[in-house]
Amino acid sequence: MTKTISPLAPTSFAELPGLEGVRIATAAAGIKHADRTDLLLLVFDKAAVAAGVFTQSLCPSAPVDFCRANLAGGRARALVVNSGNANAFTGKKGSEAARLTAEMAAQAANCDMGEVFLASTGVIGEPLNAGKFAGALAGMAKEALQDRWMEAARAIMTTDTYPKVATRAVDIAGTEVRINGIAKGAGMIAPDMATMLSFIVTDADISRDVLQTLLHEGVENSFNAITVDSDTSTSDTLMMFATGGAATRGAPAISDRADERIGAFKTALFDLMKDLAHQIVRDGEGARKMVEITVTGAASNKAAKVIALSIANSPLVKTAIAGEDANWGRVVMAVGKAGQEAIRDKLQIWFGGIRVALNGERDPDYSEAAAASVMKEPKIDVLVDVGVGNGKATVWTCDLTKEYVAINGDYRS
Amino acid sequence: MTKTISPLAPTSFAELPGLEGVRIATAAAGIKHADRTDLLLLVFDKAAVAAGVFTQSLCPSAPVDFCRANLAGGRARALVVNSGNANAFTGKKGSEAARLTAEMAAQAANCDMGEVFLASTGVIGEPLNAGKFAGALAGMAKEALQDRWMEAARAIMTTDTYPKVATRAVDIAGTEVRINGIAKGAGMIAPDMATMLSFIVTDADISRDVLQTLLHEGVENSFNAITVDSDTSTSDTLMMFATGGAATRGAPAISDRADERIGAFKTALFDLMKDLAHQIVRDGEGARKMVEITVTGAASNKAAKVIALSIANSPLVKTAIAGEDANWGRVVMAVGKAGQEAIRDKLQIWFGGIRVALNGERDPDYSEAAAASVMKEPKIDVLVDVGVGNGKATVWTCDLTKEYVAINGDYRS
Repeated sequence: MTKTISPLAPTSFAELPGLEGVRIATAAAGIKHADRTDLLLLVFDKAAVAAGVFTQSLCPSAPVDFCRANLAGGRARALVVNSGNANAFTGKKGSEAARLTAEMAAQAANCDMGEVFLASTGVIGEPLNAGKFAGALAGMAKEALQDRWMEAARAIMTTDTYPKVATRAVDIAGTEVRINGIAKGAGMIAPDMATMLSFIVTDADISRDVLQTLLHEGVENSFNAITVDSDTSTSDTLMMFATGGAATRGAPAISDRADERIGAFKTALFDLMKDLAHQIVRDGEGARKMVEITVTGAASNKAAKVIALSIANSPLVKTAIAGEDANWGRVVMAVGKAGQEAIRDKLQIWFGGIRVALNGERDPDYSEAAAASVMKEPKIDVLVDVGVGNGKATVWTCDLTKEYVAINGDYRS
Repeated sequence: MTKTISPLAPTSFAELPGLEGVRIATAAAGIKHADRTDLLLLVFDKAAVAAGVFTQSLCPSAPVDFCRANLAGGRARALVVNSGNANAFTGKKGSEAARLTAEMAAQAANCDMGEVFLASTGVIGEPLNAGKFAGALAGMAKEALQDRWMEAARAIMTTDTYPKVATRAVDIAGTEVRINGIAKGAGMIAPDMATMLSFIVTDADISRDVLQTLLHEGVENSFNAITVDSDTSTSDTLMMFATGGAATRGAPAISDRADERIGAFKTALFDLMKDLAHQIVRDGEGARKMVEITVTGAASNKAAKVIALSIANSPLVKTAIAGEDANWGRVVMAVGKAGQEAIRDKLQIWFGGIRVALNGERDPDYSEAAAASVMKEPKIDVLVDVGVGNGKATVWTCDLTKEYVAINGDYRS
């Protein structure tokens, strides 16, 4: 497993403040590696409101099944996340391991099993030995502290080369509330939530209905607008918890989707989600370039997103970008195969602000030198206008390098 | 451009006999490289019946537009193919270059422009200088000979590392007829006919309607069941021509799809198409392993093919195979993301006859050593039963290697 930090990593990490209502502990349970933390526990001493979005995979992991069932209750007292083993495709042993973990967590947090949420990430198909958590969870629940967000982000990493954290402060009716989020990638990333785990906590006082609605809406242009390799994982989980801890400082309870006081919160939340999503792309396996693809002029926003993802998932486009080649022909190919309306003879394509194609052919003013210079940048913006209507979408991906192949050619070993 | 011959190349090439009714010439027109043949002319002295299947891309190349228009006439006197430039995304200049090429070919073959078919393969977005064919085509038409199939296959190569040829002999009502085919790959290969060109000629006497029907049916389990990198080209073209030359030796005219005399011909044709399709996969860019993926137990044959292609196109599955890793977890992931019904807890997976997964978890009898040994073979068979119904499909792909990335990172240069 490569441990060189991605060249696209942020130069500094946000400092996440403690949030009222949630305590954090991590431990080294020795699931796969002996020398790192691989177990995370979040304890909500007073039940937090829970919302979640999960993988669309028809072969979901045992923890995903478990969370889906508990989400009906909508109350969280504990979240347990382990890295090193996905507990996916593990049959009855897998559901049993999930149940056992939840039982131990419920005991440790002194709550009901229906108030426990779980996530596992790592190799698929290996039985998870939940017994390894037995000695750890009770002590973790006792020792958990508010101020351990960076440790939390580190404990859930797998092939990630850096921890992913983000925080926002926002005003609700005169009271400052906070949103903290952590995430992990870094392979099997594609729309429909691919082996991506992200956990967001706010101290705002928000009802389950509103929280779930916000999460569904926000995911569209953040986690569901990124792709590393088009592969969707069995374990994708995005969960958000509202502790309501800020209520003691005067934050109002929000229980109506139409409540206007939620406006700034929504903006800040969506911004945080996009921030975390971008951090995942920047840590895509083997990534050397961050690529932002915007499609305009499509029949609808949805059509624009399909075309943008067709470009973002094309191995030929991604290898060209790895090779710093402004190969607009492959972008045309990817537009053509997307199956959405596009007028070939009106197509326009820009790389980093340099127009390379106009009216369905090479821009007469095209300069290979100018395009080549743009392609050397660590972030490449591709803009495509397909000449049909007003639909627009932006997605993010990374290049496809030899390192991606190397990392994934021997991941299990 | 790499010129190392694929390790999966056939150890010998079929020898294609001349066919009555078609003459062949090749030339070095200097389109991209000075030192190789890049222009192919097939001349049908008596009009042949023509059928074709083309890319589903919404941004098709100028030659594809041209062929589609002429196919309505259904008669062919000449086929011109060039490599080195795809004449795709070349706007009005592109259509003009196609028209000019056809005009010159029509003059050379002394026929109507509506009886000329064209194909171009190579880089996208560069204007094609059809003027380069001006001096060549007239001479080629004169000098063309029946016995030049291998030269034909070589002239249409791009990143292919070997020419692709196949031939079959078959009896129709007591008379032997022949089918010869050539093809080229090798990137942008995916269902819906990706930068793949293939031309098949028979001396049988078959009507246009029957020929087109055969082609449509045969493509489903041959060219549309292979994928190298999921990228669909702007230029995919499969054309078939029936010269009727065998009629002079007593071959009957077949003009009814229900004519039983066509049975053996159909079998031989489909077999030849599959042969050529497999040759394309074996020459996939950077390929080191041929992979045959069979899905059984799906809700329908169509559902089985969707699942099989989801596995075949998964970068994580393909890199694992490149790494000789029997990573069944990634196969589960690909089944899960396919969006077709599959019963997770009934899933069974075999690699090369070794069952690795049973009832939704690792086979209790699984032996890592046995699986590892199978993965070292140059051809890997993956069998997945999804436990739903009787639907079945087989597709073929290759592994994803660092060489693929290298080849495509600097293709234009």
